[in-house]
Amino acid sequence: MTPAPLPDLLLDPLVRAALLEDLGAGGDVTTRLTIPAEATCRARLRAREAGVLSGMQVAALAFRLVDPALRIRTLKGDGAAIAPGETAMEIEGPAASVLSAERVALNFAGRLSGVATTTAAYVAQTRGTRARITCTRKTTPGLRLVEKQAVLHGGGFNHRHSLSDAVLIKDNHIAAAGGVRAALRAAKEGASHMLRIEIEVDTLDQLAEALDEGGADAALLDNMDLATMAQAVAMTAGRLALEASGSMRLERVAEVAATGVDYISAGALTHSTSALDLGLDF
Amino acid sequence: MTPAPLPDLLLDPLVRAALLEDLGAGGDVTTRLTIPAEATCRARLRAREAGVLSGMQVAALAFRLVDPALRIRTLKGDGAAIAPGETAMEIEGPAASVLSAERVALNFAGRLSGVATTTAAYVAQTRGTRARITCTRKTTPGLRLVEKQAVLHGGGFNHRHSLSDAVLIKDNHIAAAGGVRAALRAAKEGASHMLRIEIEVDTLDQLAEALDEGGADAALLDNMDLATMAQAVAMTAGRLALEASGSMRLERVAEVAATGVDYISAGALTHSTSALDLGLDF
Amino acid sequence: MTPAPLPDLLLDPLVRAALLEDLGAGGDVTTRLTIPAEATCRARLRAREAGVLSGMQVAALAFRLVDPALRIRTLKGDGAAIAPGETAMEIEGPAASVLSAERVALNFAGRLSGVATTTAAYVAQTRGTRARITCTRKTTPGLRLVEKQAVLHGGGFNHRHSLSDAVLIKDNHIAAAGGVRAALRAAKEGASHMLRIEIEVDTLDQLAEALDEGGADAALLDNMDLATMAQAVAMTAGRLALEASGSMRLERVAEVAATGVDYISAGALTHSTSALDLGLDF
Amino acid sequence: MTPAPLPDLLLDPLVRAALLEDLGAGGDVTTRLTIPAEATCRARLRAREAGVLSGMQVAALAFRLVDPALRIRTLKGDGAAIAPGETAMEIEGPAASVLSAERVALNFAGRLSGVATTTAAYVAQTRGTRARITCTRKTTPGLRLVEKQAVLHGGGFNHRHSLSDAVLIKDNHIAAAGGVRAALRAAKEGASHMLRIEIEVDTLDQLAEALDEGGADAALLDNMDLATMAQAVAMTAGRLALEASGSMRLERVAEVAATGVDYISAGALTHSTSALDLGLDF
Amino acid sequence: MTPAPLPDLLLDPLVRAALLEDLGAGGDVTTRLTIPAEATCRARLRAREAGVLSGMQVAALAFRLVDPALRIRTLKGDGAAIAPGETAMEIEGPAASVLSAERVALNFAGRLSGVATTTAAYVAQTRGTRARITCTRKTTPGLRLVEKQAVLHGGGFNHRHSLSDAVLIKDNHIAAAGGVRAALRAAKEGASHMLRIEIEVDTLDQLAEALDEGGADAALLDNMDLATMAQAVAMTAGRLALEASGSMRLERVAEVAATGVDYISAGALTHSTSALDLGLDF
Amino acid sequence: MTPAPLPDLLLDPLVRAALLEDLGAGGDVTTRLTIPAEATCRARLRAREAGVLSGMQVAALAFRLVDPALRIRTLKGDGAAIAPGETAMEIEGPAASVLSAERVALNFAGRLSGVATTTAAYVAQTRGTRARITCTRKTTPGLRLVEKQAVLHGGGFNHRHSLSDAVLIKDNHIAAAGGVRAALRAAKEGASHMLRIEIEVDTLDQLAEALDEGGADAALLDNMDLATMAQAVAMTAGRLALEASGSMRLERVAEVAATGVDYISAGALTHSTSALDLGLDF
Repeated sequence: MTPAPLPDLLLDPLVRAALLEDLGAGGDVTTRLTIPAEATCRARLRAREAGVLSGMQVAALAFRLVDPALRIRTLKGDGAAIAPGETAMEIEGPAASVLSAERVALNFAGRLSGVATTTAAYVAQTRGTRARITCTRKTTPGLRLVEKQAVLHGGGFNHRHSLSDAVLIKDNHIAAAGGVRAALRAAKEGASHMLRIEIEVDTLDQLAEALDEGGADAALLDNMDLATMAQAVAMTAGRLALEASGSMRLERVAEVAATGVDYISAGALTHSTSALDLGLDF
Repeated sequence: MTPAPLPDLLLDPLVRAALLEDLGAGGDVTTRLTIPAEATCRARLRAREAGVLSGMQVAALAFRLVDPALRIRTLKGDGAAIAPGETAMEIEGPAASVLSAERVALNFAGRLSGVATTTAAYVAQTRGTRARITCTRKTTPGLRLVEKQAVLHGGGFNHRHSLSDAVLIKDNHIAAAGGVRAALRAAKEGASHMLRIEIEVDTLDQLAEALDEGGADAALLDNMDLATMAQAVAMTAGRLALEASGSMRLERVAEVAATGVDYISAGALTHSTSALDLGLDF
Repeated sequence: MTPAPLPDLLLDPLVRAALLEDLGAGGDVTTRLTIPAEATCRARLRAREAGVLSGMQVAALAFRLVDPALRIRTLKGDGAAIAPGETAMEIEGPAASVLSAERVALNFAGRLSGVATTTAAYVAQTRGTRARITCTRKTTPGLRLVEKQAVLHGGGFNHRHSLSDAVLIKDNHIAAAGGVRAALRAAKEGASHMLRIEIEVDTLDQLAEALDEGGADAALLDNMDLATMAQAVAMTAGRLALEASGSMRLERVAEVAATGVDYISAGALTHSTSALDLGLDF
Repeated sequence: MTPAPLPDLLLDPLVRAALLEDLGAGGDVTTRLTIPAEATCRARLRAREAGVLSGMQVAALAFRLVDPALRIRTLKGDGAAIAPGETAMEIEGPAASVLSAERVALNFAGRLSGVATTTAAYVAQTRGTRARITCTRKTTPGLRLVEKQAVLHGGGFNHRHSLSDAVLIKDNHIAAAGGVRAALRAAKEGASHMLRIEIEVDTLDQLAEALDEGGADAALLDNMDLATMAQAVAMTAGRLALEASGSMRLERVAEVAATGVDYISAGALTHSTSALDLGLDF
Repeated sequence: MTPAPLPDLLLDPLVRAALLEDLGAGGDVTTRLTIPAEATCRARLRAREAGVLSGMQVAALAFRLVDPALRIRTLKGDGAAIAPGETAMEIEGPAASVLSAERVALNFAGRLSGVATTTAAYVAQTRGTRARITCTRKTTPGLRLVEKQAVLHGGGFNHRHSLSDAVLIKDNHIAAAGGVRAALRAAKEGASHMLRIEIEVDTLDQLAEALDEGGADAALLDNMDLATMAQAVAMTAGRLALEASGSMRLERVAEVAATGVDYISAGALTHSTSALDLGLDF
Repeated sequence: MTPAPLPDLLLDPLVRAALLEDLGAGGDVTTRLTIPAEATCRARLRAREAGVLSGMQVAALAFRLVDPALRIRTLKGDGAAIAPGETAMEIEGPAASVLSAERVALNFAGRLSGVATTTAAYVAQTRGTRARITCTRKTTPGLRLVEKQAVLHGGGFNHRHSLSDAVLIKDNHIAAAGGVRAALRAAKEGASHMLRIEIEVDTLDQLAEALDEGGADAALLDNMDLATMAQAVAMTAGRLALEASGSMRLERVAEVAATGVDYISAGALTHSTSALDLGLDF
């Protein structure tokens, strides 16, 4: 199910900043010098390769912010699959406005559709298992909101948005706190009841300790091999959610999913994706 | 030659925004719950694969903005090559501060070092030719400044920073203006003498027209095959700079460079790079 | 346990904006006209009534932003109890700087200490029970971060920071989704595994439905009388956390806590508190 | 007389910031998961207790910023009295939009109506006297503009907006300047002719000195008892405005007003008010 | 008397924005390409013509924001007279930093010293009279704060900082309100006691009406000839302050001052001044 | 040819900031007190002296931002000549809105039309020569974008927008780099191919060195006398563009243009212009 669109209010500062970055100190000099004011155009945002779209709402906002008079028709929106040559959006109006907004619209849409497309490929590898694909905090600085949405558009799930919306106790926290039990106890005592608690475990012993102590909603199985993960699943027996993490390359996903873990998180969804090839044709 | 560092003033808004994005509405809850206030640490930012560094100045700023009391020692800075296992930076001070800044520092450094490393790979393919590698405007929204620096750190050159700092007449501008000559004439008449003028040409006929009309500093050879590029080089005889563009994948760079073009521009340097794998060890 | 201080980075925009608001378009005209530039002073921030302090870190930042040369000594920090006449902070340096920052420092400290003091009074009513006091989203626009901290300083716990960091299904959501079960099912299917899910119930029937469906971490008992709450506690038997909510005035807290609920949330902690009376003496 | 509305331009940054604070890093997850995109609603903003409204313009702006498609009808606007159960505003349109904006709209309207209602109660105590009720600079950081408007909506008057729009010489300024006369002389010589000058006096001797020196438009009678205030009124004989100040609790207002002072200023109007109980019914 | 410096906090956003505007999207490319990182310099900010300085605090902040390592020595500060060839400020440190900050520092200092110098010329024409020179709201958008300071540095006085810090009833307000009396009555009834009230009068009849009605602190004599102004002075007899306004060119100031008016306001101080010629010598 | 308008998006932050500066902390108190809410008006923005208009787009935006209900008709737009008494713009709607926006609209339009008018006067002196008039970076901090547009509206050309969009090697760069040749070589080697390179020369020897080394697009002839400029023109023979610079007062422009230089740049266009006298009549 495709998630509902966000209020434009949340995207506005991001898109406005990107447009100001691209228009630069003096605006689009080429367009001002070569495009007659009265020239209009009809442009089509088209895919040049197959993928899953994201960033369509953002792209539409970019065009509208440059010129509210542009008429925009979204044929395939965020979360839709697109084939090479298909049109996702039509934009009609002053040619100068379309040309000045084009690159920002494409930079967002290409990158975010890349994230959605990669996510969809990961998700496809989990078919028939209970495993869900999630992102991490390894997102592009400044783009976390829209990259997290792109993961949803690709059929994945979100992890934490920030350091403040869930507790994730990692190895360094465990070491500083004095062990798994002590760290969990501190979290249970101090955390809001509206915050989930997850703890990273490197070994089955640590997992056993976490299960015994209680208080965690999830355990992050860090860089475990397949056999160990399977043991973790058996040992846990559904008492908490298990998240497999660490170098989750696409080619490993199916076998990891087959171990029975609940979640597979992959930084690569956001930190190492190629942009989807989209173009604007006139 | 590695470019001089930028004033932190230029990076400050970017890094500050990224930290606020990652700290979230309530700060780092896990660290606040599990790390004793008096705990200190010494962390090393290390490479887990070989590459060229970028984003070190940015990472240092991230740590300092979270806690001015952190002591930071940069062992390998922006533009330096790094081998797996080598340390780029040491950070000493309150453990809570290091943990709260870690992800933002790594997200910048990983992504920007990825761009620098890819650029260096492209540059290596041009050895022995006159060709220089340049970026495009296909950068991540909001990160253009630092991605452009990363291209420099990798040994490449920059293209336009924005739509306002050079004239680049593309196919749509040519069509709207009434042809190559008319577009060039409009640009020559109207542009500031401090702006370079480049024109995109799809054919040798268009190139001939541009050479004849004059006024362009450079021509962008769009999606030409190798033979046509070589003819363009011969025909131009140095009267303007030639930039090869269009799907410049790494494996094509050497042969394109061998045609004698002056510049090879590749959007992939910034829109489709994997982050370099960097980690923080305690 | 008093929570660790936040990085000043998080407070800086808030304090800076408040100072610019108070200094106004032309700065502190009275001080500029009447205080000689070389005049120095030693001021004491003192309590004029008993309470629990919050906003001390913020106040210190206000003084430092107006003049980095001011020397600040915090004698009693955030979370400390203070008696009438006791000094919380000493500020020494240019008199003009102290006078120009005074009101902003006191406005923050007074208001936030008011929240902490009220929270402490609520907490005191729960002694001997398992009930914890929590805030709501009924905070002052723009001050949520610091008011949530003030609740912690007073010994309370936080609820959601924003609409994005936990799922709280209220009556209108239930109605639109088609009932308790349907709403819970949608949340279980779609929500990130790092988000807690709470559901508001008005009746024991709704609670039974929620328990039966599963998937909720907590139930918000909305405006129930004491007997019904006690039944809810019995019925739930620890399967999820129970939060009592709705007009939780101080005088009702002890008896509500005695029902065995886990949390008592009160908007009044933040929307209807008197400022603690603090003053700056020279 | 109710003051004219402010241009939305002045309120926009405040409301936008509050919405971003409440929507959080990822928007309203609950609503996105449970409310169908096509669901519409008609909501009524209703009073649950009697009071004077303020914040209606702000609330309307909050709804419009989240969704310009919402239709808003203000039945009772800023400055109007409202009885329990009466409707102040109707909002119609997408249910998801109404739910996402609801809390911010209510947080502003509740708090500001609280200020207006308290002010109106103070004003009622002055009936039949010349005394006017005014606020102080003890406002909530960031909300000064709207809290000052709320005081006007309640029938009160404003004091300074900031340190730059009038001269108010307080005890510390007097001490540093070398006495009442010296301070007044410095102010008279240096201040713009468009700035009022007020001086704080603790005793009738100081008042006499101020009257003799001239140059002040008003004197602030700080923490005087009723008899002394009455003497101050007699002594001044209208030569300057007299403002009674210091712990002006509601129960003292009538007798203070009876002394003949021109103004009674009370920090409590803004720093210690309960929010008016308003709710949104569907 | 030179006014005290403002807190840098008030100037910081202005100077930071100007530096970002001048550094542009990619920083100072010329300096990065040609100045060795280790090159240091000692620069002197010198006057090339005589004048009164303003903008020195701003210029120092510009240098410090670009590079906190620069050592700055102010020899002649804001409000000081300077002769051609004299040095106002010495800056020592990295040459690249000095060169990158130079233009912004000079743009502020040149423009603001121009305002101060023009103001001083106006003030010189009033010697021996009671007339004070004031600015207006005809300031450069965005620079009101620093231009108002420059007027003080030149020995002038400030008028309103903004539309909110005093009442100035102009001809259009009078017309809409129904005449001088009605407008004054509305102002007296509604305005805060901390706001001065001034009324614009075009004729002596209007002035008489204003005097008779009372409530105004000042009257603005709009475009009156000298004889009428002298009559206005006689008629008013000190009951309110008189401000002469309208095309107050330097050559008219002495004779206007001789009429006995209290203030002469001139938009030209800020809207039509030449920058003082300042340069940076190495 | 008048340049195309910029997207309002680029002007919006500037105009919004100026309006907030002028409205101040509490809005337009005079208008709120004296203008009935229902009063409407029709105002005409008229010239009181002859000139060339600029800032009309900005002024229209100012009115619309204060009140989107205002109807604005631009009779003479940016770049048009206007005679005394002619109307440039008509504004109709709520009188309070027009009065509150008036000063900001006029401050922008007056100043920018002043720049355009001065530029046009310079341009008129070059008639019959090849010389073009250009601005410099000596612009008002914060207003560079609109002042550069004003230069275009007056028939002039732009120089660099910022330090990042062209290389301009000045005397200090030459000295630090080790001479004209070394500086040019560094620029040629390091600069992007999309950046023009200009070098400042004080003597014909330096010019000869620059011509011999090659790599520069333009030379800035700094403070040369007419005979030397003419020699420079002869010597250069069109191999690079020549820009005459240094104290280019209006009365010298014709004779400088007659020497055959390509560009004459004058800081005075922006740093020392009088505002054009414009007013709003009701």
